[in-house]
Amino acid sequence: MDAAALTDFIRAEFGQVAPDFAVEAVAPQTLTLRLKVDERHLRPGGTVSGPAIFALADVAMYLAILSRIGPVALAVTTNCSIDFMRKPAAGRDLLAEARILKLGRSLAVGDVLVFSEGGSDPVARAGLTYSIPPR
Amino acid sequence: MDAAALTDFIRAEFGQVAPDFAVEAVAPQTLTLRLKVDERHLRPGGTVSGPAIFALADVAMYLAILSRIGPVALAVTTNCSIDFMRKPAAGRDLLAEARILKLGRSLAVGDVLVFSEGGSDPVARAGLTYSIPPR
Amino acid sequence: MDAAALTDFIRAEFGQVAPDFAVEAVAPQTLTLRLKVDERHLRPGGTVSGPAIFALADVAMYLAILSRIGPVALAVTTNCSIDFMRKPAAGRDLLAEARILKLGRSLAVGDVLVFSEGGSDPVARAGLTYSIPPR
Amino acid sequence: MDAAALTDFIRAEFGQVAPDFAVEAVAPQTLTLRLKVDERHLRPGGTVSGPAIFALADVAMYLAILSRIGPVALAVTTNCSIDFMRKPAAGRDLLAEARILKLGRSLAVGDVLVFSEGGSDPVARAGLTYSIPPR
Repeated sequence: MDAAALTDFIRAEFGQVAPDFAVEAVAPQTLTLRLKVDERHLRPGGTVSGPAIFALADVAMYLAILSRIGPVALAVTTNCSIDFMRKPAAGRDLLAEARILKLGRSLAVGDVLVFSEGGSDPVARAGLTYSIPPR
Repeated sequence: MDAAALTDFIRAEFGQVAPDFAVEAVAPQTLTLRLKVDERHLRPGGTVSGPAIFALADVAMYLAILSRIGPVALAVTTNCSIDFMRKPAAGRDLLAEARILKLGRSLAVGDVLVFSEGGSDPVARAGLTYSIPPR
Repeated sequence: MDAAALTDFIRAEFGQVAPDFAVEAVAPQTLTLRLKVDERHLRPGGTVSGPAIFALADVAMYLAILSRIGPVALAVTTNCSIDFMRKPAAGRDLLAEARILKLGRSLAVGDVLVFSEGGSDPVARAGLTYSIPPR
Repeated sequence: MDAAALTDFIRAEFGQVAPDFAVEAVAPQTLTLRLKVDERHLRPGGTVSGPAIFALADVAMYLAILSRIGPVALAVTTNCSIDFMRKPAAGRDLLAEARILKLGRSLAVGDVLVFSEGGSDPVARAGLTYSIPPR
């Protein structure tokens, strides 16, 4: 699935959160996803909340997997280990760079770096495992 | 801080998400937090989303730490490793049981089990580390 | 499998490391494993090394799973998230208390607390996932 | 510290395990470490054990940090989340590529990919956090 197909898929299946995200780039092992940061993602002080960063990493890896295996809505996250390293820059979108490290029959594993747009030091990193239902 | 003081604190500091949560019980090493599951927490199929479960675990540990050290708004999550083990039961609130394992000068570590209300098998487990600013 | 059967199993299958460990207690959801701390487990300063603590947690969860499903040598660790919280007490064995949280058809998830013998504050905690081969 | 200085340091401080490892390359944000795979690192079937892979990732990140801050023997691992993705190739050394993502005053965070020598698919990945004592 390419960026347009992934965008259609999240609109159809995850209508509620779809407007938060934009697929920026898709390649065989990687995917870049934007979080269009909005009032509802912020914590006091204007920083993006942990759950919003978690959601960005989680959706980025999910879409990276779908870009490879097609629209399998039932793939589910089984584990995520996330490190929050820096406060996101205020008033900037976040970009997640997801990388697939293993795409097995039943498990997919990857990692994600999250940056404030224009920044070079990562805000967060995550390792994620997805369970893929039998096809 | 007891349950009432913690509730006041999250209302004052996290007004946006405060209505989602209710402190059910506070003890020296543990805290139980309810996620009042609502339409906006759900994924297609009626199951609670991963980010909503993450947020519940994160806030439960945060409040468990505050119950011990007082209202330190600047304590921040540095790491969370979460396992999603079972689909939450439809139409039920979630309860998180947070347990403090270490409360050091600069780092606090604990874990959380998340259950569907009335269920005995955990939906998720998480280990979390918080950085506590110098006091 | 009970404590004696598990001990026989690790002697047969993991002869090299078997003398390091002793199964202390087995119950339906839990297992306690002792690391007989020896010179080769120590780092400078006399503290038990991180890899030795990791190995203890890993073997404890593995045996907890085997106690439920029988001698499946090919169950493999797919993820471990471990927090090292305190320096182990010098000159004491370590005890790992493993707890099974999910025992599915293909994945088992649990957590482990590690204590210095006689201590009440945990030295480490770990969450582990095992992949169980089809039977 | 360059590769030679790091090698001297681990020989002096970690004499017991030093012969297992060789520093292959050091750059400002990265370090490559070899595990000279030996009989004692193997599990039945000839595969490298999980604790040996954990130790490799842990030492690689430790040395990457020391290469930047100098010989601080008391830096300690506080968290490691490791995914074991593939069986290491038999009869080959393992190479760990550690990358520093944050080097703060009191915490350092990085990740590690582990490969069988000559292989392009990672055997394991880990995210690690180190606590750095006040200087």
